[in-house]
Amino acid sequence: MQELLNKYAELKAKSKAFGFAMWMISWDAETEAPHGSMEYRTKQVGVLSSEIYNLRTSKDTIELIYALHEKKDELDQITKKEIIEAKKEVDKIVKIPKDEYIAFQMLISQSSQIWAQAKAKNDFEAFRPTLEKVIAFSKKYTEYLATDTLKGYDILLDDYEPGMTQKEYDAFFDTLRKDLVPFALEVSKSKKRFHDGFLKLHYPREKQKEFVEYLIDVFGFDRNHGVLKESAHPFTSGVSTKDVRFTVKYLEDFFVSSIFAAIHEMGHAIYNQQHDPKLDDTFLGGGASLGIHESQSRFYENVIGRSYAFWQTHYPKLQSIFPEQLGNVTLDDFYQGINRVETSLIRIEADELTYPLHIMLRYEIEKGLINGTIEVKDLPKVWDDLMMKYLGIKAPNFATGVMQDIHWSMGLVGYFPTYALGTAFAGQIHHAMKKDLDIDQLVKDNNIKAINAWMKEKIHQFGALKLPLELIKDATGENFTAQYYVAYLKEKYSNIYK
Amino acid sequence: MQELLNKYAELKAKSKAFGFAMWMISWDAETEAPHGSMEYRTKQVGVLSSEIYNLRTSKDTIELIYALHEKKDELDQITKKEIIEAKKEVDKIVKIPKDEYIAFQMLISQSSQIWAQAKAKNDFEAFRPTLEKVIAFSKKYTEYLATDTLKGYDILLDDYEPGMTQKEYDAFFDTLRKDLVPFALEVSKSKKRFHDGFLKLHYPREKQKEFVEYLIDVFGFDRNHGVLKESAHPFTSGVSTKDVRFTVKYLEDFFVSSIFAAIHEMGHAIYNQQHDPKLDDTFLGGGASLGIHESQSRFYENVIGRSYAFWQTHYPKLQSIFPEQLGNVTLDDFYQGINRVETSLIRIEADELTYPLHIMLRYEIEKGLINGTIEVKDLPKVWDDLMMKYLGIKAPNFATGVMQDIHWSMGLVGYFPTYALGTAFAGQIHHAMKKDLDIDQLVKDNNIKAINAWMKEKIHQFGALKLPLELIKDATGENFTAQYYVAYLKEKYSNIYK
Repeated sequence: MQELLNKYAELKAKSKAFGFAMWMISWDAETEAPHGSMEYRTKQVGVLSSEIYNLRTSKDTIELIYALHEKKDELDQITKKEIIEAKKEVDKIVKIPKDEYIAFQMLISQSSQIWAQAKAKNDFEAFRPTLEKVIAFSKKYTEYLATDTLKGYDILLDDYEPGMTQKEYDAFFDTLRKDLVPFALEVSKSKKRFHDGFLKLHYPREKQKEFVEYLIDVFGFDRNHGVLKESAHPFTSGVSTKDVRFTVKYLEDFFVSSIFAAIHEMGHAIYNQQHDPKLDDTFLGGGASLGIHESQSRFYENVIGRSYAFWQTHYPKLQSIFPEQLGNVTLDDFYQGINRVETSLIRIEADELTYPLHIMLRYEIEKGLINGTIEVKDLPKVWDDLMMKYLGIKAPNFATGVMQDIHWSMGLVGYFPTYALGTAFAGQIHHAMKKDLDIDQLVKDNNIKAINAWMKEKIHQFGALKLPLELIKDATGENFTAQYYVAYLKEKYSNIYK
Repeated sequence: MQELLNKYAELKAKSKAFGFAMWMISWDAETEAPHGSMEYRTKQVGVLSSEIYNLRTSKDTIELIYALHEKKDELDQITKKEIIEAKKEVDKIVKIPKDEYIAFQMLISQSSQIWAQAKAKNDFEAFRPTLEKVIAFSKKYTEYLATDTLKGYDILLDDYEPGMTQKEYDAFFDTLRKDLVPFALEVSKSKKRFHDGFLKLHYPREKQKEFVEYLIDVFGFDRNHGVLKESAHPFTSGVSTKDVRFTVKYLEDFFVSSIFAAIHEMGHAIYNQQHDPKLDDTFLGGGASLGIHESQSRFYENVIGRSYAFWQTHYPKLQSIFPEQLGNVTLDDFYQGINRVETSLIRIEADELTYPLHIMLRYEIEKGLINGTIEVKDLPKVWDDLMMKYLGIKAPNFATGVMQDIHWSMGLVGYFPTYALGTAFAGQIHHAMKKDLDIDQLVKDNNIKAINAWMKEKIHQFGALKLPLELIKDATGENFTAQYYVAYLKEKYSNIYK
């Protein structure tokens, strides 16, 4: 046994080190690598991926994982969980031909730069061949990994959120459709007048940056173990509790979007920073699942960031940075403005209420792409049709339509639905937290650290030690339900639109 | 033979990929990694170094290199040169015990951060234990690698500049001492009055940045294959012709330093960008030697950047960015101010004439540290004594004295002398270029690209295909001599100080 564990420790150290290198290269590629360096970098990424693949799929590794899995009940809690997950990965990865795996790694190491360039030029055709390759690989992936119980799009969905398949998501979206959508659409058609002209003013990048730097301290993101930077699309990327990085994109003509995106990413980042540090040397860092991760980002962004209590304390600071734009805007007008419900084109700029509609659209598209009822070349038209159907609006160009998101260019298919699921998790967490804390008062007192502490105890510390639905149940005392989320939204927006 | 070459291609691809990963991690560590991430990063660097070490020193690799070396005359020019160098490395690396090599890699992956923190606190004692480890390893290194002809400090010197040992450097510095130092000291004592109050004014970081961005286009640094960033100490780091990065440090109270440091780094960077791209997949990128590299940075910084012709064209731009500081400063006053000779504390801020004195000081210290006549704990005193002896001044604190340079903290011992050698190479290159080009006119016409083209043809394209002294001879038609350098300086500064 000790011999097996020694071998496993060595394998783990190598995997972590290679993973660190790939993380570093990817962070650089997303934030500052020069365009002309792509081809050279891709070549190196190909070689490194091949090394990682060899390490993970070597006969020695497979035998080791299976041997440890046989004796899993003799292992400590962390190692046992790792081995259960590792066996799943080994079961999987041996089914994918090596050359296809490497080709895909090389593809996605450059595809998000191709996407960014094509998006900047509003040129779907420049991106199409790349996206076709991503979808083709995703389909082949589901074929290689099909089992008796899981096939097609379900494979991808379960990959991103263990336990969730089309059956569960269809049911989940049906609930939202029934309970939330009518309310959201009613609100979005409200004739209530808002004094929200301030939203459309020009807010210089440097000043926005100043406010985001201020927010970092308000939310307690640990700068000594993190980095803030800019990129084409905001994201968070943590390699351990000691190094968690997130990015913002400053939109000078839509500053609300930049600020809430920054708070959103900080939610992800604080989650990563608050894992038990002993998970740093394991494969269980990085969070329980995408849905749980999104519950954290949405909680910080919406429940805290868009609350009246939050701006009671921090609006004067924002006014002092933007005296010209906000000097004459009252707190109430500001609060209503940032919570205005309006059907809009861009997912990441959508309000809290209509956001799930954007996800439903993507969910249907992905389902069609993987199940073969939609082809990549038809995407622009499909997109327009669904936007019209769900939101009643049409994007004037690809950059604000079908090409707005980075995800597919990164090979992430099956990922979007977790966003909607995460908001529902956040609602349930909020309901549970209210039993322990006076959230509004803490936020008003600029004591978000107390909220962070609750999150750490109930959610953050565990990393991937627990499964998503297990974590939700343990943290809230109930099985997952979307009812608290719907109730929270109805209460909040009924007040604003009363 | 084909089998050997295939194996070699595979080895090379892996080495390049690992090298790329280490380059990326190091670039990140120098420019933006959070302080608290050091320990975790160091652990990963340790594992990766160990992998690289295993790759380079495996029985297979050693046999392969020796086998190819046997048949080196059958190889193409590039592979032959690579194998000659690789054999030297293999000869070397097998002599260093693996655990010591890895411990040293881990040490230097964190030591420059320790140095930066200690320097910020002006705390030599906080840095001393780290520096002691660096020196101890350097000494052991020279013991492991000693040969009949090369031992001690000579081993380090030859590592950084092939063909140069204490004998050659002693002779070189003697020449400078005899021909240049009396002139430099005479000039530095000149009673000539300069209107250079503008040097000490405050120049905001953002404005300096604007001018450096302008300079990037003036000098023709290729942004599509490069990055500019900030760090505690300016440096250049290229991983291929497709990705060359350099940093600046904006000193708000000494902007001249920032600007010339930026031009200096651009000299390094343009050299790397102008290698023959076919060297990207070889071990022959990155330049012929440190001395040759420094000849390029010094040429761009001094011969171009500090010339009258340059500022005839670009001074109006600088004035437009800093109207308050420079609006009333004439071109002549500016030119004289930036070429003012004055003994000073900081090497990278030293003028063109007194610069070599700073190098002589470091050369003597390194010699003493390695040969055992100086101990690290005595460095502050030794530093003060030598500063007084050579420059007649005393640093008020460690940050502007013995702790000013990053090099030793990075394990670079034997590196400094190449700086002085490089300036002499630059003088000889300048003399040769004048036969082909009207340098002043090209600079005045904002046509530095024509100078870049000459450099590419004569120097840059070759990367490490030629040895330093061979390259100088081929480019200039003469064996290396310091006389053109001395003559250039005497002519320039006689004019300024006439």
